[in-house]
Amino acid sequence: MRDLFNVPNDRRGTHCSKWDVLDSKFDVPNADGIAMWTADSDYPTAPCVLRAMQAAVDHGVFGYWTDNTDYHAAIQWWMKNRHGWDIDTDWIMTTQGLGNAIALCLDVWSEPGDRIVTFNPVYHEFEFKIRRAGRVPVQCPLTRDGDTYQIDFDDAQSRLDGTEKLLIFCSPQNPSGRIWSAEELRQVAAFAARNDLIVVADEIHHDFIYPGHTFVPYDVAVPDARDRSVILTASSKTFNIAGLKTGNIIIPDATLREAMAQRLRSLDYSPNRMGLEMVTAAYTPEGAEWVDAQIDHLIENRRIFDDAMNAIPGVHSLPLASTYLAWVDFSGTGMDFEEISRRVRKDARIAPSPGPEFGPGGETFLRFNLATQTYRVEDAAKRVQEAFNDLQ
Amino acid sequence: MRDLFNVPNDRRGTHCSKWDVLDSKFDVPNADGIAMWTADSDYPTAPCVLRAMQAAVDHGVFGYWTDNTDYHAAIQWWMKNRHGWDIDTDWIMTTQGLGNAIALCLDVWSEPGDRIVTFNPVYHEFEFKIRRAGRVPVQCPLTRDGDTYQIDFDDAQSRLDGTEKLLIFCSPQNPSGRIWSAEELRQVAAFAARNDLIVVADEIHHDFIYPGHTFVPYDVAVPDARDRSVILTASSKTFNIAGLKTGNIIIPDATLREAMAQRLRSLDYSPNRMGLEMVTAAYTPEGAEWVDAQIDHLIENRRIFDDAMNAIPGVHSLPLASTYLAWVDFSGTGMDFEEISRRVRKDARIAPSPGPEFGPGGETFLRFNLATQTYRVEDAAKRVQEAFNDLQ
Ligand SMILES: Cc1ncc(COP(=O)(O)O)c(C=O)c1O
Ligand SMILES: Cc1ncc(COP(=O)(O)O)c(C=O)c1O
Repeated sequence: MRDLFNVPNDRRGTHCSKWDVLDSKFDVPNADGIAMWTADSDYPTAPCVLRAMQAAVDHGVFGYWTDNTDYHAAIQWWMKNRHGWDIDTDWIMTTQGLGNAIALCLDVWSEPGDRIVTFNPVYHEFEFKIRRAGRVPVQCPLTRDGDTYQIDFDDAQSRLDGTEKLLIFCSPQNPSGRIWSAEELRQVAAFAARNDLIVVADEIHHDFIYPGHTFVPYDVAVPDARDRSVILTASSKTFNIAGLKTGNIIIPDATLREAMAQRLRSLDYSPNRMGLEMVTAAYTPEGAEWVDAQIDHLIENRRIFDDAMNAIPGVHSLPLASTYLAWVDFSGTGMDFEEISRRVRKDARIAPSPGPEFGPGGETFLRFNLATQTYRVEDAAKRVQEAFNDLQ
Repeated sequence: MRDLFNVPNDRRGTHCSKWDVLDSKFDVPNADGIAMWTADSDYPTAPCVLRAMQAAVDHGVFGYWTDNTDYHAAIQWWMKNRHGWDIDTDWIMTTQGLGNAIALCLDVWSEPGDRIVTFNPVYHEFEFKIRRAGRVPVQCPLTRDGDTYQIDFDDAQSRLDGTEKLLIFCSPQNPSGRIWSAEELRQVAAFAARNDLIVVADEIHHDFIYPGHTFVPYDVAVPDARDRSVILTASSKTFNIAGLKTGNIIIPDATLREAMAQRLRSLDYSPNRMGLEMVTAAYTPEGAEWVDAQIDHLIENRRIFDDAMNAIPGVHSLPLASTYLAWVDFSGTGMDFEEISRRVRKDARIAPSPGPEFGPGGETFLRFNLATQTYRVEDAAKRVQEAFNDLQ
């Protein structure tokens, strides 16, 4: 099954956001640049998902959908079997993906001008979504203890003024791939309780867990914090179907849930059927096997890429516990960010995500997406090495 | 090409909202009932749309989408070539279909408790969406002049208290298939101006126009009313792809448009790529040919169905200028609605949409969806005749 991840393909010219804007957005040549920024994968989705889509195309009728029983059961099965998390199917609400889910949480549980807490560096869109909704980001820096990020609750506390409404919490963390322990999640819940915050736990990367690490769902760690817990999950990263814009808001608490449900009803939300069919086909034993094979593939990609990065003096790729997003620190090169970025974009012709976008702590970093064919990772690793070969 | 519309198929067990709830929702046997209610079609979408989906499945990568240029150009082409309507591509915003678009208009341009005007009988979901959003419907009855509905502006005026915010206007009208003339649209705009209402013109049925009739887009009729015009269109009915939940809000006026755009940005709206690809493939010369063939098919279905209905003493199917939704008046039978409905559901084993749902004026009606294979229309026509054969 590993071969599935190495079939050469070309996403350029397919309305692909990752590959079709190299030139315009990154000043990297479209012709032979390598896109390693936005978090989707370059290989096709799982065969079981493709079969479901093929069946839909063969039937050919795309009218109104009814009955989410199978869809909800599939989600329930996945959370139980892959994450040891028991959920009721009526906790599940479907959105246009998790960007939209975060925006809906801001809409339901805060007002324009309200302050929203994040722990940074974190997925840059948290800040952008907070600002687009007219809310104010309160970015609390994580501290770095060797290769491991830690939450500094005292520092975070000192940044709050008591009017904050939500904590948007990334678990596992993008970037850095940090997986939070049950004890840390309990501390997060206590911090939220102390400051009267609703916790929006974005667990979109929860399926990419590397050997030796264990992911604990927020709700499993702190079931007694449900009165302020909102959990976001999606199959979009796991199965590379982000373009179908289908994600879940999972809310165990009836009062919180009804507030969101009321908002979705009043906005007449109704998910697209292709997304529902894909998720239903993905969250199956066959889908799980494909994900396991994907993880083996990613382990190989990481090994190749990390070895190459760590061989460059002053460059350090943090070991990943989760995610397919290598988080590479260039601070040891002594170069300023502009020079680092120029070398990678102009000399290596690679478009990674710039670290500063992720907020405090990202200043000297680049984030490289490794969810691609191994030959591309090898090529990229070589190019970065060459771009910094004056340091060797 | 006409053959495409008559290939027998079975939508039961496909998560199809029209066919899979006959028993539970209508008390009509699933085994041999005929679903003629919700407005989607039973035949497959156009071959050009299916080819686009097939190409997507063959490529297999469903990551993030970028660049709506082709998609917008296709919409622009369709409006120009099928409707003589010149639009700028930057007037277009994409929603999860038009139910969602209506809800968004309520959200942006009214507050909970506000009064919202409709002309009834009209698409029942207008009222439901108004209520779900906590707004108050002000239903103004159309008058019936023989087979033609008319707007009674004086009566409507008398029902307003001056606090109304929006007029949700169906053009062509569902049900009844009434197409409003340019002069009538000017009167609607004048009524809206007099009462300081934003007009949300729902033109979802605009592609089903029968010979001898001309559809005039609201914006073509009243370009000088743009400061209060919001137009909704979609390819979902035309191409039977409602399950993909992709619709347009088209707003020529920059101020109105920015208000909606700001809301969509703050909610982090982003359409699913399958819907965009389907629309782009649909709004083409080949798609247009398929729609023309579909209309020929519907003309035949209407002829068969209307002849059968009008042969029943006291039953009258109104001649349709637009839509595939036969609007049948049973008032001449002298029966009460319960008896009419019972005969159609229990004796004929057909699930139509009950007229009373459409508000004032619908009391004695049933709405039958004719967008199906001709053999089903023939079967249904016979069954209704038999259910009322004591009248012959
Ligand atoms: C933490 C996190 N949340 C949300 C998203 C985006 O989710 P969606 O594509 O469902 O909007 C991403 C994508 O990179 C992510 O990393
Ligand atoms: C007038 C009208 N508007 C909107 C809709 C629903 O649109 P959508 O499926 O895009 O939510 C319908 C469906 O029957 C309709 O008849």
